[in-house]
Amino acid sequence: MRVAILAHEKFPGRAKTAIGILRYAEYDVAAVLDRDAAGTRVRDHIADAQDAPIVESMDEVEGPIDALIIGISPIGGDFDDSWRPDVRAAIGRGCDVYSGLHYFLSEDEEFAALAEEHDVDLWDVRDPPDDLDVSKGVAADVDAEIVLTVGTDCASGKMTVTMELVEALNEAGHDAAAIPTGQTGIMIEDWGIPIDRTISDFTAGAVERMILEKGDDHAYLVVEGQGSIVHPAYSAVTCGILHGSMADQIVLCHEAGREAIHGYEDFELPPISEYVDLYEDLAAPVHETEMVAGALNTRELDDDETAREVVEEFAGDLGAPAIDPIRFDSKPLVEAITEQ
Amino acid sequence: MRVAILAHEKFPGRAKTAIGILRYAEYDVAAVLDRDAAGTRVRDHIADAQDAPIVESMDEVEGPIDALIIGISPIGGDFDDSWRPDVRAAIGRGCDVYSGLHYFLSEDEEFAALAEEHDVDLWDVRDPPDDLDVSKGVAADVDAEIVLTVGTDCASGKMTVTMELVEALNEAGHDAAAIPTGQTGIMIEDWGIPIDRTISDFTAGAVERMILEKGDDHAYLVVEGQGSIVHPAYSAVTCGILHGSMADQIVLCHEAGREAIHGYEDFELPPISEYVDLYEDLAAPVHETEMVAGALNTRELDDDETAREVVEEFAGDLGAPAIDPIRFDSKPLVEAITEQ
Repeated sequence: MRVAILAHEKFPGRAKTAIGILRYAEYDVAAVLDRDAAGTRVRDHIADAQDAPIVESMDEVEGPIDALIIGISPIGGDFDDSWRPDVRAAIGRGCDVYSGLHYFLSEDEEFAALAEEHDVDLWDVRDPPDDLDVSKGVAADVDAEIVLTVGTDCASGKMTVTMELVEALNEAGHDAAAIPTGQTGIMIEDWGIPIDRTISDFTAGAVERMILEKGDDHAYLVVEGQGSIVHPAYSAVTCGILHGSMADQIVLCHEAGREAIHGYEDFELPPISEYVDLYEDLAAPVHETEMVAGALNTRELDDDETAREVVEEFAGDLGAPAIDPIRFDSKPLVEAITEQ
Repeated sequence: MRVAILAHEKFPGRAKTAIGILRYAEYDVAAVLDRDAAGTRVRDHIADAQDAPIVESMDEVEGPIDALIIGISPIGGDFDDSWRPDVRAAIGRGCDVYSGLHYFLSEDEEFAALAEEHDVDLWDVRDPPDDLDVSKGVAADVDAEIVLTVGTDCASGKMTVTMELVEALNEAGHDAAAIPTGQTGIMIEDWGIPIDRTISDFTAGAVERMILEKGDDHAYLVVEGQGSIVHPAYSAVTCGILHGSMADQIVLCHEAGREAIHGYEDFELPPISEYVDLYEDLAAPVHETEMVAGALNTRELDDDETAREVVEEFAGDLGAPAIDPIRFDSKPLVEAITEQ
């Protein structure tokens, strides 16, 4: 599939979805749309990702394109009307449009009419299927070993670590697939359910449904976790994923230096060792799990030596191997997972 | 408010909502509709509840009525067409209709048209408000002490214990109110949000919103818990309520003799002492809480002496005072709560 990614005025610093797609998706990215960075290339801004030209608008994207992906999500999740000409042009060229915005493109009168006229799909990935149901408690019955990424907080790297683990497991010869639960993961995998948008009674059931769909075709499933079990607002989602996935192994994702819940600064993060107990003890009555490794995000640290030191400290607190899989590599995580 | 309660062919054994309303609501119940039990009275079937005649249909209910309440919920939550004449008659008499069914009366063409014609409300209590939002983590800021009922499983008595506690606290001179989170509680209180139907990201936020609305007007708020923190399907809802409510105290509800999750018999209940740790430890990073008491449902035990014995054993395992507030009385629970 050949795609274009819309990231106006936000690439690369505030374009998490665009970067996730450039790093991990199997799409052939024809161009990134960013009117501020037009004329540069992806490789001028980030390493370790597919390169592509950055252009001003859809009109400058050459050749046939299968889909335009909205690769940014402003606070509030609204659609910015300055993007309208690009979406209009994409539909006119017969492209599907993928969006993770709260504003549903399929409910936009102009886009809905245009999409019908040009016979293209508008895929609002935040809209869960309407036939979800309660969990039956059977995710553990699949053949695959289930690995779940969990976090000390939101935005601690769970999506990135999930994708890195799937890549690294496959590179090491283990057949692994991701179970995407958030908008970026879903766009990367071209598949998935946005777990934070399901009806709360069906949260665990939605995860279970995805695992049953893929679980007998792979040796490992890596489930993308959400939120944190100690988050004042989002812990319900985290808990539903923990129990619905019936994970055999969990990997704790943490950002070095973070001391309080992001956006909820009155809530201090508990010690790392307490997270181990909280996640393992809460999982156990449904399915025994083990914290096998940790992934530390050290992007805020300047030098590798300091990063190595804080990774060591984190591993000590965790009582398990740890690494920053982006700064260093994912091998220690793969070893920890596959030796179980 | 003067109401009639529809409970055809299900009163009293399978009419949990009807009985909850007769026991705890402040409505004046003019009649219960049950074509099988017509001619008897509520007091012929259950004690400790408001008495009312049981009649065949809405036509036999005398005098002005403000609302007809659907007091039963068949498996699947469907509307039974044999109830249609009663609902039609009620709307024709200017009554509002309250329903906790999955089938929304407001989306039934005949009822919607009739309701508009007669200017009455069709209130589908399972339909949450559409302006819910994420929790801000501020429920603890209200003046009231927050007490949350939690369970070892579903259907362990959380709604009943919540209502008993509110009554008993008020009788003891403490101004208390319920925070209803499920359909029966909402119908009893004529107010509330069905937490299991909210979008999962907003689960904690919905509880917080209710607490902020009532929290400065009462000395105690008793939050109706849902599910169980170890339930394979519903734990997300439980976790969202635990963190969203920021409860100061929790009361554990358990049914004597239950050894596995109801409907999920492969999942054994952990020991009672483990529930204490699970709930307290999970709550603590958001808001410290204490398991102050237990409520044991002993309805399956024949004699009071055996019931007293298992209550004692339960209290021992819990490390806190316990009682069956329906079989015996709620005083020990009130004492445990108010001496904190």
